[in-house]
Amino acid sequence: MAAKANELVLFPSWEVECEAWDNADGQNCRAICPLPHSQLDNILVSREEVERYDKISCRDRFEEIKHLLSTEEAWILTALLHITGGSMVNSSLWDMIRSQALMSYDPPNFAPIWTTFKLRQGQSALAGAMFQDAGDNGLQYVFQTPVKSIVERSNVVTVTTHAGREFRARRVVSTIPHNVLHTITFDPPLSPTRQEAITMGHINYMTKIHADGDGVTPSGRAHIVGFGKDERATFVPERNPEKAVDAFQKLHPMEVNKMIFHNWNTDPWSLGGPAWWPPEFMTKYQEELQSRHGRVFFASADWAHGWQAAIDGALEQGSQAALQVVKEIREMRGVMARF
Amino acid sequence: MAAKANELVLFPSWEVECEAWDNADGQNCRAICPLPHSQLDNILVSREEVERYDKISCRDRFEEIKHLLSTEEAWILTALLHITGGSMVNSSLWDMIRSQALMSYDPPNFAPIWTTFKLRQGQSALAGAMFQDAGDNGLQYVFQTPVKSIVERSNVVTVTTHAGREFRARRVVSTIPHNVLHTITFDPPLSPTRQEAITMGHINYMTKIHADGDGVTPSGRAHIVGFGKDERATFVPERNPEKAVDAFQKLHPMEVNKMIFHNWNTDPWSLGGPAWWPPEFMTKYQEELQSRHGRVFFASADWAHGWQAAIDGALEQGSQAALQVVKEIREMRGVMARF
Repeated sequence: MAAKANELVLFPSWEVECEAWDNADGQNCRAICPLPHSQLDNILVSREEVERYDKISCRDRFEEIKHLLSTEEAWILTALLHITGGSMVNSSLWDMIRSQALMSYDPPNFAPIWTTFKLRQGQSALAGAMFQDAGDNGLQYVFQTPVKSIVERSNVVTVTTHAGREFRARRVVSTIPHNVLHTITFDPPLSPTRQEAITMGHINYMTKIHADGDGVTPSGRAHIVGFGKDERATFVPERNPEKAVDAFQKLHPMEVNKMIFHNWNTDPWSLGGPAWWPPEFMTKYQEELQSRHGRVFFASADWAHGWQAAIDGALEQGSQAALQVVKEIREMRGVMARF
Repeated sequence: MAAKANELVLFPSWEVECEAWDNADGQNCRAICPLPHSQLDNILVSREEVERYDKISCRDRFEEIKHLLSTEEAWILTALLHITGGSMVNSSLWDMIRSQALMSYDPPNFAPIWTTFKLRQGQSALAGAMFQDAGDNGLQYVFQTPVKSIVERSNVVTVTTHAGREFRARRVVSTIPHNVLHTITFDPPLSPTRQEAITMGHINYMTKIHADGDGVTPSGRAHIVGFGKDERATFVPERNPEKAVDAFQKLHPMEVNKMIFHNWNTDPWSLGGPAWWPPEFMTKYQEELQSRHGRVFFASADWAHGWQAAIDGALEQGSQAALQVVKEIREMRGVMARF
C-alpha cells in the first residue's frame, strides 16, 4: 500500500531512475510537451507527434526502461505509478509527461509543488471563500439534489432532478465529474465522440487512507497516508476497515489509533477519483470534453488543459465557462435592449 | 549594445557559467527563494536570511565568481546583467535570484518562459480585450491627463489634474509607476518609508532599440534588438538616432533600414523602464509599496510579488486591489442599506 519511508534511502540511483523514467523524448519531455497548458495546440509540436506519444501506456514505458533499473527501483517505480489509481496497462504515459511538464521538467520541483506548500488556511477556507463570494453575488443553491436530465429547448435549458424538480436557465455550467456523466440524460443527446469518452470513463479508482499510528517512528505518533490502486473487486474500505488496519500493520508493526478516508469510488457524486486517463484518451477526447454542448458548459477539472484533476484545473475550466456565459448573457441583454 | 549571436557558440562552458552565477545559495536559489511569489513570507526561509542576500549587488556576486569564468564569459555575463538597465553596482542580486526562481531554478526554462511563446494575438490584443471588458462594465476614462494631487478628506478621495479638473471617488486605484510617483502630491502625505522608496526610485533606465538591417545574415534581412544600460547622460536616442545606427554598424557591417523604439526614460508617464531594484530595496520597501494608503491602492507591476515589472505582475497587483475595492464598496452598500 505504501513504501516505508526509510527504504527510500536504499536507492542510491534514484536520480538515474528519474532520468530514465522522465526522459521519454530524450529532453525530459520539454520537446514533446513544451506548454502543458496547451498540449495539443502549440507552435512547437505537431498533433501527430503528440498522438504518437499518447498511445504509450505506463507499462510500455516501463518495459522500455526496466533494464536500467535495479529490482528495488523497478519495484518502487511500479508502486509510484499507481498514483493514477489504475493499472500500468490502462494508465497513459501522457499523463506522466504532462505532470513532468507541469513541474518544469525537473524532479526536484516535485516536493515544492506537490507537498511542501499548502494553502495557509486550508482547502476548506478556499472553498468557503468562493462560496461566500458567490453568495455575495446572488448565488442561489441546492445541495444533495441528484440530477436526472438536462434538456435544451427553444433557447432554454431545463435541469430536472430525480425528485422531479425543474430548474430553467439560459445557460448551464455543469461541473459533473467524468465518471458521473453517464448517469445523466441529455437531450439533444451529446455528440457520439463525447458519449464514447463518457462510456469509457477515466481510470482512477484509487483507495487513499490516512492513519494515525503509534510505534512507527522513534517519536511515537506518526501520520501515514496509504495509496492503493484500483481494488474495488476485493476491497471496499468502509465495509471492511479491519483490512486496512491489517495492511498498515503488515507494512510496519504499529497500533492504528485512527483512520480517516473518503471512498470516492462508491460516492455517487464522483464514482472515482480525479481523472487520470488511459492511452490515446487525451488526443481523442480532451477537446470534445472541454467543448460546450449548445447552452450547456462542462467545467470540470477532469479535462482541464494543464492541472487536470486538480483544484487549479477546476478554476481554469470554471473561469473559462463563467467568462463565456457572462459575455453571452451581456450580449443577449444588449440585443434585447435595442428591440 | 548587444552580443553577436554567432559569438555565443564560442562559450563552451556556458553551463558552468550559469551554474556559477545562478547558484548563489548552493541550491540554485531553491533554498533562499523557494516561493518567488512569497519572497518575504514563506514557511521555509527567515526574513533575516533573505535580508542578508538582499544586501548583495550584482557586482559583489560577480567578484565572488569571476575566477570561475573565462575572459569572454565574464564579458558576456557583464553584458547580460545590464538587463536591469542599471549598473552592476546599483543592481540587486536579489532580482536575479527571484528571476531564477520564477523560471523554476533552471536556465533551460529561460527561453520558453521569456522568448519562445508569445500571446497568439499579441499584447495589443490583450490590452484591447481588457479595455473592452472594462468598458462593458461601465468604465469611464480620460487619457493624456496628468495628475497633480491625490487628496483624501472625509472618506472621499479627490484626484486633481494639472488642468485643474477634479475626480472624486470612494476608492482610488493608482497604477502610477514607481519613478513617476514623486511628481504627485499626496495629502495626507505618504508614509516616510514609502516616500523614501519613491525618492530613491528604481534603477532601470535601459535603452532598447529594434532595427531592421540588411547584410547581417546570409538571408539578407535581419531584425536586431539592442539593449543598452543607463546611458541617459550621453545618449538620448530620439535626439540622436544616428548614434544608434553607428552602434549597430560597429557591431556588424549592415544597412539599417528602419529603427523602432520608445524611450521610456524621457516618457513623462514612466520616467524609466520596468522596475529593477538596488540592493536592500526589496526587503526594505516591497511591503510598503504594495500597501494601501487610506483609500488609495497602489497597483503597479513595479512592486508585484512575483513577476515584478511584467504584465503578469500588473495583473497580480490590479486583481488584488480590485478584489479589495469591490469587497469594501459592497460592505459599504450593505451598511448603508441597513440604515
